[in-house]
Amino acid sequence: MIISRANPRIKEIRSLKEPKALKKSEFFYMEGLRIIGEAFEKKAGVQTLVVAPELLKAAYGTELIHQAENQGIEQLEVSADVFKSFAHKENPQGLAAIGIQRFAKLEALNAAEKVIVALTEVADPGNLGTILRTADATGCGGIVLLGDCVSPYETGAMRASMGAIFSQPVVQTDFDSLLRWKKAQGCRLIGTADSAQLDYAAVDYAGPLILLMGSERQGLSDAVTAACDQMARIPMMGSSDSLNLAVATGVMLYQIFNSRRGGVQFEI
Amino acid sequence: MIISRANPRIKEIRSLKEPKALKKSEFFYMEGLRIIGEAFEKKAGVQTLVVAPELLKAAYGTELIHQAENQGIEQLEVSADVFKSFAHKENPQGLAAIGIQRFAKLEALNAAEKVIVALTEVADPGNLGTILRTADATGCGGIVLLGDCVSPYETGAMRASMGAIFSQPVVQTDFDSLLRWKKAQGCRLIGTADSAQLDYAAVDYAGPLILLMGSERQGLSDAVTAACDQMARIPMMGSSDSLNLAVATGVMLYQIFNSRRGGVQFEI
Repeated sequence: MIISRANPRIKEIRSLKEPKALKKSEFFYMEGLRIIGEAFEKKAGVQTLVVAPELLKAAYGTELIHQAENQGIEQLEVSADVFKSFAHKENPQGLAAIGIQRFAKLEALNAAEKVIVALTEVADPGNLGTILRTADATGCGGIVLLGDCVSPYETGAMRASMGAIFSQPVVQTDFDSLLRWKKAQGCRLIGTADSAQLDYAAVDYAGPLILLMGSERQGLSDAVTAACDQMARIPMMGSSDSLNLAVATGVMLYQIFNSRRGGVQFEI
Repeated sequence: MIISRANPRIKEIRSLKEPKALKKSEFFYMEGLRIIGEAFEKKAGVQTLVVAPELLKAAYGTELIHQAENQGIEQLEVSADVFKSFAHKENPQGLAAIGIQRFAKLEALNAAEKVIVALTEVADPGNLGTILRTADATGCGGIVLLGDCVSPYETGAMRASMGAIFSQPVVQTDFDSLLRWKKAQGCRLIGTADSAQLDYAAVDYAGPLILLMGSERQGLSDAVTAACDQMARIPMMGSSDSLNLAVATGVMLYQIFNSRRGGVQFEI
């Protein structure tokens, strides 16, 4: 059992809570029974289970330890004090895990069948996680992160994704690579902006497409807008000049989802 | 100038950061130039402007102080140290304000013309603020908070609302009062649940209506569901069994908004 907060492995675990260190690392940190259970269920590459026996009370925790043993996953026993040195929660459940960050290649995505969501410089972990959750719910084929986006392996992003981080492929690339891939795939790139002429409800969403959403603060740049095949606007009333990014993405994804699915008697 | 962190007024300001104390108080705390500017613009009942001259650098801050003087709003000068004792930000801009919490009465809402959003036991300030923002963007007539909801005057809720806290009427009441009011108004109450038979895209949203959304964790109770005139389901694919509450509300509100507005050539 590790009892020193200064142990090198404990220091490494703590460092994964820093966004910069997380981006450089190949690992990520998970805490709590629910997310670790999801990671096992979805075979998300759990490398090490970190257990503080003094803190672990839940029967489900013991079950997860057995699962880890059966799968030959390394276990690290630590004291309650050590666990609390890296835990997010004030009263941690005594179970954490280190996973291997998985990013997909653009080439692995299949835009022919499923909508791809591309995000530029998304800054808020909660927004990114929520978009992963909605993308999963609407059957998207993956998320492409362009430029300096927050890591989907930040705790806030993973928590908001409700497990979708383990099921939606996530690609990190740049806009030029996305454009080349889009041409090769023969997909349309549909961007969104307040200033667009075309109402999002009037767009034909048939065929392979990538939905491109701008950052929380800046939206899409002029150069990126120019490269889009179509720009769509979500209309707004009141004093608002923008929606929350995760809400805007949800509204777009459900519009696309509804226009592509059969069996609904629309009353419009 | 107040230089003691123990000053009773400073203690009172600090107490407004505690959710429980905030709920009991008639006041709320705002920090930063943008939100204070919005509060002035929308005549949101700013009672006291709190200024730390040592920290205030922005010209817009000086402008806001002049506005406060012109409107006869009390000003409280505090030292940088005192300001930092209640500030949310690590590097605060030196301007905060105390406002008066405003809640509307159910009777002041007009469901005949505008959609009303009712929320049960919403727990996340960011979700509540984001819903206020979307309600404003889709021209809703107000938000009704049922049961033990988070306060819309928590900093996270105000921040996420992007000023909509000052333009959307917010009512705090209980479900029985809402039901009585609904009957008197002749509105329909439309609830949402995963288990509902009716697809949300197949619902007719014409006429006065209240959209009722459940809490993040529990959804709507059986008793509440039974009292709804219609229950609608947002379909989901993948492993997801729910959407983020603010996203689900946004998807519902835009479906309602689209079905009520004219001038769009739908391609469905």
